[in-house]
Amino acid sequence: MSDKISAPLSLRSVRVTDAFWSREMDLIRTAVIPYQWDALNDRIPDAAPSWWAHNMRAAARAVAAKKAGGGYTPAQRNCGFTVYPEEGTAPRDDSFYGFVFQDSDGYKWLEAAAYQLAVKPDKELQKQAQEAIDLICAAQEEDGYLNTYYTLTGREKAFTNLKDHHELYCFGHLTEAAVAWKQATGKDDLLNVARRFGRCIADKFGPGKERGCPGHEIAEMALYRLYEETGEAEWKELAQRFLDVRGTEPSTFALEENRRLKKEGKKELPVTAARYTYYQAHKPVREMDEAVGHAVRQMYLASGMADEARLANDEAMLAACERLWRSAVSEKMYVTGGVGGTHVGEAFSRPYDLPSDTAYSETCAAIGLAFFARRMLQLRPKAEYADVMERALYNTVLSGMALDGKSFFYVNPLEVDPAACETDERLSHVKPVRQKWFGCACCPPNIARILSSLGQYIATQSDNTLYIHLYIGSEITAKMNGQEITLKLDADLQKGTARLTVLSGETEGTLAFRAPAWADNLRAAASGAQHTQFVDGYWLASGRWQAGDTVDIAFDISVQAVAASPLVRETMHQVCYTWGPWVYCAEEADNGKNLHLLRACPERTGEARFTEKQIGGLTLPALTVPGKRVAAPENAPLYAPWQPSETEETKITLIPYFAWNNRGKGEMRVWIETE
Amino acid sequence: MSDKISAPLSLRSVRVTDAFWSREMDLIRTAVIPYQWDALNDRIPDAAPSWWAHNMRAAARAVAAKKAGGGYTPAQRNCGFTVYPEEGTAPRDDSFYGFVFQDSDGYKWLEAAAYQLAVKPDKELQKQAQEAIDLICAAQEEDGYLNTYYTLTGREKAFTNLKDHHELYCFGHLTEAAVAWKQATGKDDLLNVARRFGRCIADKFGPGKERGCPGHEIAEMALYRLYEETGEAEWKELAQRFLDVRGTEPSTFALEENRRLKKEGKKELPVTAARYTYYQAHKPVREMDEAVGHAVRQMYLASGMADEARLANDEAMLAACERLWRSAVSEKMYVTGGVGGTHVGEAFSRPYDLPSDTAYSETCAAIGLAFFARRMLQLRPKAEYADVMERALYNTVLSGMALDGKSFFYVNPLEVDPAACETDERLSHVKPVRQKWFGCACCPPNIARILSSLGQYIATQSDNTLYIHLYIGSEITAKMNGQEITLKLDADLQKGTARLTVLSGETEGTLAFRAPAWADNLRAAASGAQHTQFVDGYWLASGRWQAGDTVDIAFDISVQAVAASPLVRETMHQVCYTWGPWVYCAEEADNGKNLHLLRACPERTGEARFTEKQIGGLTLPALTVPGKRVAAPENAPLYAPWQPSETEETKITLIPYFAWNNRGKGEMRVWIETE
Repeated sequence: MSDKISAPLSLRSVRVTDAFWSREMDLIRTAVIPYQWDALNDRIPDAAPSWWAHNMRAAARAVAAKKAGGGYTPAQRNCGFTVYPEEGTAPRDDSFYGFVFQDSDGYKWLEAAAYQLAVKPDKELQKQAQEAIDLICAAQEEDGYLNTYYTLTGREKAFTNLKDHHELYCFGHLTEAAVAWKQATGKDDLLNVARRFGRCIADKFGPGKERGCPGHEIAEMALYRLYEETGEAEWKELAQRFLDVRGTEPSTFALEENRRLKKEGKKELPVTAARYTYYQAHKPVREMDEAVGHAVRQMYLASGMADEARLANDEAMLAACERLWRSAVSEKMYVTGGVGGTHVGEAFSRPYDLPSDTAYSETCAAIGLAFFARRMLQLRPKAEYADVMERALYNTVLSGMALDGKSFFYVNPLEVDPAACETDERLSHVKPVRQKWFGCACCPPNIARILSSLGQYIATQSDNTLYIHLYIGSEITAKMNGQEITLKLDADLQKGTARLTVLSGETEGTLAFRAPAWADNLRAAASGAQHTQFVDGYWLASGRWQAGDTVDIAFDISVQAVAASPLVRETMHQVCYTWGPWVYCAEEADNGKNLHLLRACPERTGEARFTEKQIGGLTLPALTVPGKRVAAPENAPLYAPWQPSETEETKITLIPYFAWNNRGKGEMRVWIETE
Repeated sequence: MSDKISAPLSLRSVRVTDAFWSREMDLIRTAVIPYQWDALNDRIPDAAPSWWAHNMRAAARAVAAKKAGGGYTPAQRNCGFTVYPEEGTAPRDDSFYGFVFQDSDGYKWLEAAAYQLAVKPDKELQKQAQEAIDLICAAQEEDGYLNTYYTLTGREKAFTNLKDHHELYCFGHLTEAAVAWKQATGKDDLLNVARRFGRCIADKFGPGKERGCPGHEIAEMALYRLYEETGEAEWKELAQRFLDVRGTEPSTFALEENRRLKKEGKKELPVTAARYTYYQAHKPVREMDEAVGHAVRQMYLASGMADEARLANDEAMLAACERLWRSAVSEKMYVTGGVGGTHVGEAFSRPYDLPSDTAYSETCAAIGLAFFARRMLQLRPKAEYADVMERALYNTVLSGMALDGKSFFYVNPLEVDPAACETDERLSHVKPVRQKWFGCACCPPNIARILSSLGQYIATQSDNTLYIHLYIGSEITAKMNGQEITLKLDADLQKGTARLTVLSGETEGTLAFRAPAWADNLRAAASGAQHTQFVDGYWLASGRWQAGDTVDIAFDISVQAVAASPLVRETMHQVCYTWGPWVYCAEEADNGKNLHLLRACPERTGEARFTEKQIGGLTLPALTVPGKRVAAPENAPLYAPWQPSETEETKITLIPYFAWNNRGKGEMRVWIETE
């Protein structure tokens, strides 16, 4: 399968020029990253504290004391899943504060900062990032161990609870940041921190050592990335070890628990893996066939599995990845590209259980789905992977952040009635408005890192083929058959056209263009092509390319009324509207209250019209579609003999889903009832 | 308003002859009551223990020891909401076991047993009941206090947690049983136990004493019943005191909590009532306007309020009852007569939130609704009260028990997919099959007591009017204008006819017949009537009645397709079918899996046909209605452009809701999607 394997383009080789996406990326640089730096330093007045810098500084002091031969007092305050001390008060001692995985917040921020620095120098940001890195270096223990929770609460307990204590998760995020920093700045400092911690971990859990694997996955894909960056086989081997141990008997998570139970004189548990579904540790990874458990973890694991399939040419792993993909996207994905149907365990629910109002659909899970999709594209360039990746990026990932970059959704429901969210405990996980910062702040920095690295999703390349997956205006420098070539991608989705122009360089090779699932009648013309073909949803033009050559792509895009499979009980009789990659939704601001009384007329979708709407300072293409409104007279009896509904003609106004809740609190619905 | 006030007929004056209901009542006598006696004595092998008899015996020994001047050791094991010791093992000591309200199980059983004894002598049952009563007498402390939990765990803590510890709830059930026992047997023994405990409570919380009220209501209506039985004003005054204190500032529940917090050196709470919605203690009862909180408690409170309105001619209370009634039945009631839309707090949800699959709709809450409805009928004989009472009795109350009387539902959903219930924590309260006995066994004995006293729901009477509410064959002895008259009610719903025949006696008076909401074209003819009129849904025939007189009632009953108000989001596009008082449902046993793919055709309801179906040994009138089935091809894409559904014509088979889940585990739906 190696001939088809491709890789994302390097960080510096894609410059996004598209107006919409440039604005999003600028927002990350100018608003989100500085805000999050303040958050990491607990300088946001009304937000939950991060404790990140505090914990790092406290750990650095503890490490210094240790090196100086002095002791330090382990301490812990409000750690784990408990409350914080009075909000906004700075801790007065060197205790550990916040969640056990708090270190990762800063690593995610650093990764996003590195991506930004790769495309645009920024002295202030560079200074802050270096400050963070210096702090991290100082907090690393002499043997390479790095985790402020255990450094501050008792190093002797390190590595005793891989299932729930996120040490390997923090290591994974550290490593992702380290590689990004190296690629952006050429600097090895953070990379060496990751290497030293990695060796400390490998000494304990590497091949031939104690069996163990991460409770929250990410280390797998981070290690493959470190391997690809450094060429050092030890990282690939450690990743493989984690994958191979996962889900095998006796369960390492059960063994861990039993050691604790034994110490406490309690009855030990059976050591079977089957009950660790939440952690995707219920069966060996190569046997997995259903996306289950915590959705972010499942997507991160699948991403690491796809890396293994690609880098080790591991056919059994590829087959498992394909089964997980099919399960996730054909039975368990929201139309918005979100995954995670239930808040119980923030998890995948059973097939076709996709409730709109109690949805979990965590922003991070959609990001994870994009990770997985890009890796599947690297394995096998098939348009369906890019279709899903695009659906997630354009909808759920973006909806996770307000248009001003200042507030965030953790959960992305497809139907919201604020009155219900505010009074109903069954909806307590669904916030009707975005929040400034969370105590468990995984989503905001995750959005920052994926949007900052958007270029890596636009195109991938193999030795002689450049694949264009997303029609996002950009300048791309690629190496094809060893020759550098610079190209300009212009795209105008409103017109349904895209043009790739060779700016400089000359080479033999293939330029491949995705035919999106939402487009009809793809038409393509390439000035320099000697051979064209259509494979797996990509139009491939092969030939010799030189400056001035162009490839023109055109397709028809129309508003579509989309229905879900009849096996999805929740969306019976409902449609949603899409246009290109965007999913649309109805908001109370445009359509009044009681959105469930609206009736779409999908057979009249041809009457849909675009209108411009100002939302959050942006001019967005809103849609009006023909519809009806059911009369709901006051004092209508609760139950009465059935009669056809009384309706009146109306226009339903829809806006892109990602832009919802930027005009105050109100009802929202993606799925509209039909007549 | 006193001219309209009516009372239920006395226990011995109605003998149910109707074949269907006689069977249900016989089942209670022959299967349920003996089974529950075994359960109270922990003699059911695979069921959760009740601990009732154990706790009573242990308390009796403690009381005896105390009387003898000796001390006793308070003890408590697994009390409150924790697990039991190994199931099926008998406790080996005199500790208290089970829930804090465990005493009430036996009182409910006694009440049901008394009702049965009132209509049919049964030596064995009489012996068991007397054994139970002797045990209760022995467990009563010298000052009248009676609660095994506090007797066994420390009497000094008695009355310190009225909010959650159910002492007054147990007193209420004791009193209900005591009055029933007195009425059934003429014996005063249990009545005197209730009186003594009542005086002990009144000494503490009566008028002019410490403010306090029950956390779980029932004492109110029990006290009014005791007052009506004995004529002793003290019980009415104590009930009034509980109602008057409830929901007023400072909240007695908050004061209670604060005393505990203060003792523990913790920060005290604000003493405002507003947060005690769960307990209906959030505002003064006469100001209440919405059915809220724990549904059973709300219904029991409303029943006590209705008693107060009637017995004290309390207009403000009547108005509050009418508001609560309107809220409960016009905005918050399932079509099956169930109430409680959410399992969070086993509670009323917000208006029009009536989910079918996550429904709570506890059996006891439907029983409570019937209590409330009958009391509203006593206040104001309006057919709408009887319509609701009948809907609850014929559907949710009956569905709470298997047709063989051996297993029970606590929760009565309107849509069940067993696979979902078994894997989805969000549905963990919904059992797809009935259970043998619950640790919290409120429902089984509650079904026993309401079905055993069914006669009290068939008819009520005022001084000169006998109201026939339910068309259930029976023999009724009533006193009208001081003269005894015996009547025979025959009803044949299939034919839509009923006849009341005067068997003996002679009197002036009015015979009133309900025109059910589900019947059309009520036609009536009375041989002895001098004057007829139609008032509040009742047809009234006044005259002089003597043996041989008859009143003939006829009405048209047809199968109805019923829709909910458009404000109920859950049942958009859905209908259910009713016939007379029965709500019908579709089961997998008749219609295969994926019931959500069925499409009803409500405009063709005239094509509905009855067929006989054998279920659980009964021959039941099943229905077939015209419908369609949506094709759901394997491998249908999860999302695709909308197109009209492909359907094929089918017949949908429906059975009465109460009879569901008597043919093994399977899907069930009350609400069927329409085209």
